[in-house]
Amino acid sequence: MPVRFSFEPFDRARIIPGSVTAPRGFSAASWRCGIKPSGREDLALLVSDRPCSAAGVFTTNRVRAACVDINRERLGKGAAQALICNSGNANCCTGEQGWRDALEICRITARELGLPEEMVCGASTGVIGQSLPMELLRRGIPEAARRLSREAGPDFARAIMTTDTVPKEIACEVELAGGPIRIGMAAKGSGMIQPDLATMFCFATTDAAIPPADLRDLLREAVEQSFNCVTVDGDSSTNDMVLVFANGASGVAPGAEDWRALRETFFWMCRQMAMAIAADGEGATKLVEIRVTGAASDADARIAARTIANSPLVKTALFGRDPNWGRILAAAGRSGAEVKQEMLSLAINGREIVRRGHPLELSREEGLRLLEPEKVDIGLDLGLGRGSARFWTCDLSYDYVRINAEYHT
Amino acid sequence: MPVRFSFEPFDRARIIPGSVTAPRGFSAASWRCGIKPSGREDLALLVSDRPCSAAGVFTTNRVRAACVDINRERLGKGAAQALICNSGNANCCTGEQGWRDALEICRITARELGLPEEMVCGASTGVIGQSLPMELLRRGIPEAARRLSREAGPDFARAIMTTDTVPKEIACEVELAGGPIRIGMAAKGSGMIQPDLATMFCFATTDAAIPPADLRDLLREAVEQSFNCVTVDGDSSTNDMVLVFANGASGVAPGAEDWRALRETFFWMCRQMAMAIAADGEGATKLVEIRVTGAASDADARIAARTIANSPLVKTALFGRDPNWGRILAAAGRSGAEVKQEMLSLAINGREIVRRGHPLELSREEGLRLLEPEKVDIGLDLGLGRGSARFWTCDLSYDYVRINAEYHT
Repeated sequence: MPVRFSFEPFDRARIIPGSVTAPRGFSAASWRCGIKPSGREDLALLVSDRPCSAAGVFTTNRVRAACVDINRERLGKGAAQALICNSGNANCCTGEQGWRDALEICRITARELGLPEEMVCGASTGVIGQSLPMELLRRGIPEAARRLSREAGPDFARAIMTTDTVPKEIACEVELAGGPIRIGMAAKGSGMIQPDLATMFCFATTDAAIPPADLRDLLREAVEQSFNCVTVDGDSSTNDMVLVFANGASGVAPGAEDWRALRETFFWMCRQMAMAIAADGEGATKLVEIRVTGAASDADARIAARTIANSPLVKTALFGRDPNWGRILAAAGRSGAEVKQEMLSLAINGREIVRRGHPLELSREEGLRLLEPEKVDIGLDLGLGRGSARFWTCDLSYDYVRINAEYHT
Repeated sequence: MPVRFSFEPFDRARIIPGSVTAPRGFSAASWRCGIKPSGREDLALLVSDRPCSAAGVFTTNRVRAACVDINRERLGKGAAQALICNSGNANCCTGEQGWRDALEICRITARELGLPEEMVCGASTGVIGQSLPMELLRRGIPEAARRLSREAGPDFARAIMTTDTVPKEIACEVELAGGPIRIGMAAKGSGMIQPDLATMFCFATTDAAIPPADLRDLLREAVEQSFNCVTVDGDSSTNDMVLVFANGASGVAPGAEDWRALRETFFWMCRQMAMAIAADGEGATKLVEIRVTGAASDADARIAARTIANSPLVKTALFGRDPNWGRILAAAGRSGAEVKQEMLSLAINGREIVRRGHPLELSREEGLRLLEPEKVDIGLDLGLGRGSARFWTCDLSYDYVRINAEYHT
């Protein structure tokens, strides 16, 4: 059972159905190639009816899949029109054959769609170190291309899943001065949401007309405050990527006065996807939000929040509803952030636990009750400055171990 | 069931019984204060019959127990004669009261032993954030002092345990030019042997006469190659410490020609204790040794080895006997070490898996068989230079989660 997660309230935009095909001009398809032993959908295709401005943010892992390098190069020109994504096999650590396969997948897709090859991006997620079953893909891609539809956004979101238990998607309509524009997103999570875990994807579409340079800035800033705060971050897995495609089909080119609404909506949507990923972390029974305040700098707050978010001791304690808050302070203490023990104040779900280094009375019963909710908010005030950060993670449960011990098998 | 671990072969020294009291002039005692709800031994006392040269290496966590700061200050002068250690409560994050309590424990011990207060070191390990039950300690310390004996080294090793399943101790006799000297060690492990987990201790004794400055250098170098390579390292938990006491009772002051034998023995012993800690990591079913070679520098090798050793994905795969070797390469890739994907070669238990970036054929059956032994050797050659490092860790099992979700309760 994943953690129940509902979007945070937001009044800038209206949530609409349709996932990545909610914006005008985008179609999608999914197909069962047979890569996944389960027989579930393992091929997802996304296409715009016209060329898009496009941008991407990628893993910085030195060991990475060919698709990452291919997309980075293609999106360097700021344009793309389609994305083909397979799940069940990451096509990473597969040597030169992996490169050839990644290129062939884009080539077949381009041929089926009648597009130039450089306008197609590729993405793979799943087990590392096994060659792709190319025969299945050679048969599957044309099948997917035949099934493209304006309604298939949710199917796309489902087909990119690996160990995710629920699809992650959102679409919004925002009223701008020039008229309404739409933004859609589909994401997939990765492992326990730690920096070393398998692939995290988010694919975003919009029918606003946005020049590539602006799109790139928008994406980078949004990722920094969302996906990079679930510790599924840039310098982590081998295949991670966040891509955005803007096709301009709304006819609306957001002006300076519109930019703020667009930006806030895009950021909020990315944050919802990031939280959805944390809530659906492998084996998660709790969504954990860590807010560090009072840090000497934002960078300090970030490193403290991230270290807490990654501590197996903190995560197992939360799973056990064990108010073992000393582990939270210990994680902050070793994070590298400036920390003065006697200045630390801690609150869990709004209940003050430590005030300026002194533990307050907390009965065992109250401690257990405090950790009952599925959402746990950890507030740590370093008491030193004005730096702050928000991070999301999940707890570490038996199921995490089960899923990852048996993933390959 | 902990992993069965036997010491590596070594021909410089003879293994003898007796733990920390094997060296002449040291006595020890253990006692049940009642701090541990289980009623097991929770107080350990170690005393030399004469003042010792002494040195320590401590956690660098900014959040740390009072005993760490007290010992660091006292050992700054290079002398000590006794150590009092309680298990079951770390006396950390306990505010000013924690400081007063830590000082009082040393004071009571000094009084009972008739020693100056500054000659007594203290150590606490267990739950963070709860005040010590001082009444129990005030009654218990005199009881321990009354029971001091030359034979109680193994009792000492048992009384410092927390979640350890077996005591960790070793004693050796080394023939030096001036005559035989003895070294004893008792250690306790910590959590899953990750840098953010609870207390790791090692207490070493020797009857060699070693000046404080030499002892300090010896200890620092040894720790760097042993305890800091199980990723239970200096910048980690709140209470970690490694202390060494040299009382000179053998009458042997090692000369320059002896130093090498002493050093090698001391290093080897520290390494055995470090491996014993990894083998008894919480929930461990495997002892994992990671050897990184061919790195651009030793520092690069170290960071790559450590990142692999800390990867929950690698550790869960090993638990599941899942030859999911891509996770090992991915961990190296994100470690920050210089890594070229096409230069990586990997072997597991001597079987080559990847050669210069190309995966070799490995059947599922062979993969499973490969990971059957309790000891797993991961050899990663970065193919770039001459830097190398050895690291130890254990796998990540259901039991790790169980132990840490329920530790506090």
